[in-house]
Amino acid sequence: MKILLAKSAGFCFGVKRATNMAFEAAGGCRHICSLGPIIHSPQVVEKLADEGVQVVDRVEDITQDNVIIRSHGITAGELDQLASKSLSIIDATCPFVKKAQQHAASLSRDGYHLVLVGEAEHPEVQGIVSFARSAPVTVVATPEDAEKLPRCSKLGVIAQTTQSLGNFQQIVALCLRKSKEVRVFNTICDATSVRQEEAREIASKVELMLVIGGFNSANTTRLAVICKELQPNTQHLETADDIEPAWFEGISSIGITAGASTPAWLIEQVVKKVERFSGTDSE
Amino acid sequence: MKILLAKSAGFCFGVKRATNMAFEAAGGCRHICSLGPIIHSPQVVEKLADEGVQVVDRVEDITQDNVIIRSHGITAGELDQLASKSLSIIDATCPFVKKAQQHAASLSRDGYHLVLVGEAEHPEVQGIVSFARSAPVTVVATPEDAEKLPRCSKLGVIAQTTQSLGNFQQIVALCLRKSKEVRVFNTICDATSVRQEEAREIASKVELMLVIGGFNSANTTRLAVICKELQPNTQHLETADDIEPAWFEGISSIGITAGASTPAWLIEQVVKKVERFSGTDSE
Repeated sequence: MKILLAKSAGFCFGVKRATNMAFEAAGGCRHICSLGPIIHSPQVVEKLADEGVQVVDRVEDITQDNVIIRSHGITAGELDQLASKSLSIIDATCPFVKKAQQHAASLSRDGYHLVLVGEAEHPEVQGIVSFARSAPVTVVATPEDAEKLPRCSKLGVIAQTTQSLGNFQQIVALCLRKSKEVRVFNTICDATSVRQEEAREIASKVELMLVIGGFNSANTTRLAVICKELQPNTQHLETADDIEPAWFEGISSIGITAGASTPAWLIEQVVKKVERFSGTDSE
Repeated sequence: MKILLAKSAGFCFGVKRATNMAFEAAGGCRHICSLGPIIHSPQVVEKLADEGVQVVDRVEDITQDNVIIRSHGITAGELDQLASKSLSIIDATCPFVKKAQQHAASLSRDGYHLVLVGEAEHPEVQGIVSFARSAPVTVVATPEDAEKLPRCSKLGVIAQTTQSLGNFQQIVALCLRKSKEVRVFNTICDATSVRQEEAREIASKVELMLVIGGFNSANTTRLAVICKELQPNTQHLETADDIEPAWFEGISSIGITAGASTPAWLIEQVVKKVERFSGTDSE
């Protein structure tokens, strides 16, 4: 039995940073909450809850003295609301997301119709677009959406940090038909494409592919979809408890990767259990 | 016999404007020259020579008191040279080319590495890039050229006015891999794509396609190439004298278009001769 573990599996820079900030802050005080889950890993959020970090969904419901802003960021409106309360704010927004928020604000200030390539429902996207306060905004998920963009004098284009470059390229190309000026900031985080590339490589070599990460994590879900295209025998799991012995029957090679919000200890538990089932060590 | 004449055949806005300016200027004075041919039509240039407009290739060779700047524009260096002479300057640069020159200058001033999508040898391209005096410039003709672009902090992308949108889109998409910021001004003139689209439509319907225009005209040559892809029986001709009777043997439908620098009277002469050969009227 051969086990291939992706080098890029697990926490990205922004998630690692946010998680560290949250655990550090929790160690120092008890009156603390996070606005929305810090990262899209129910297991990490649970561990933080054990340390006293409660998740609060709306600013008006905060009763604690300290609030942590999650890695995906929050909206400009929520930021204003927080500022009007006498709270201590720990901003764990991923620096790459913050950069996208800043581009949204400055493109909008400069009169560009903002096109954000991403998923309209994702909290990161809702946060970013809220910073474009001075000009129209359109969230575009697919080239078909881009075809429907109105003609306008200047378009500013940015992306959700976890977008695929190919989709972004296609949409930018279509924007050239809609406006004489198209100003693009490529806000895609390389970690996503590196992780996806490695997952593709591994999935194409193995008989079973395991993708570990929150069922509420968009990047993990996309990772599982990508793997499934190359290896239909792909399983998306959150923890080692989700593993089923039947998966390993007649299988001689297994690939393992994990989303950006999956902690190292969860990956290790899965790897150990897989090794036990298969009676082998991972590479 | 059916003859289809393209509605978009012949002079574009910029060429018509330059030619009118040249004939008007020639009527008023005799000490006049143009720096390079006004437009890429040897027949129009000859007519202007009859009116006294001589073609001079280098600023240092100008002996006349008045100089006309051709529709394709000239380089920033030539403009400086002209300004240092006590000459009257008639600027017949196409306003769309001038706009591209201005974008080249301002993008370069703002520190963008300029990417000009076009043919490096074309006088319009040589003119435009010369205005980018403050940052590096690369002329890119194909996606393969774009792959070789260096990584840099910000790229400014513009196009030769007669470029195809498809090539421009592909190159812009590749630029997104080379820089975090890509600022694009779509300087392609719609007249070119409208003309090419109509030529494609007609060429796909006829048994013989005629493309009229200077052999030194890049846009006419490209038009002939586009037509040949759809109808291998395509002829590129400059004047009615180039027509050969053998072309019409066994042919029941003929399409006619002309480049942006082909005057209406040249098109009319060709149409008349084709009608004579085929014994029919054009549509």
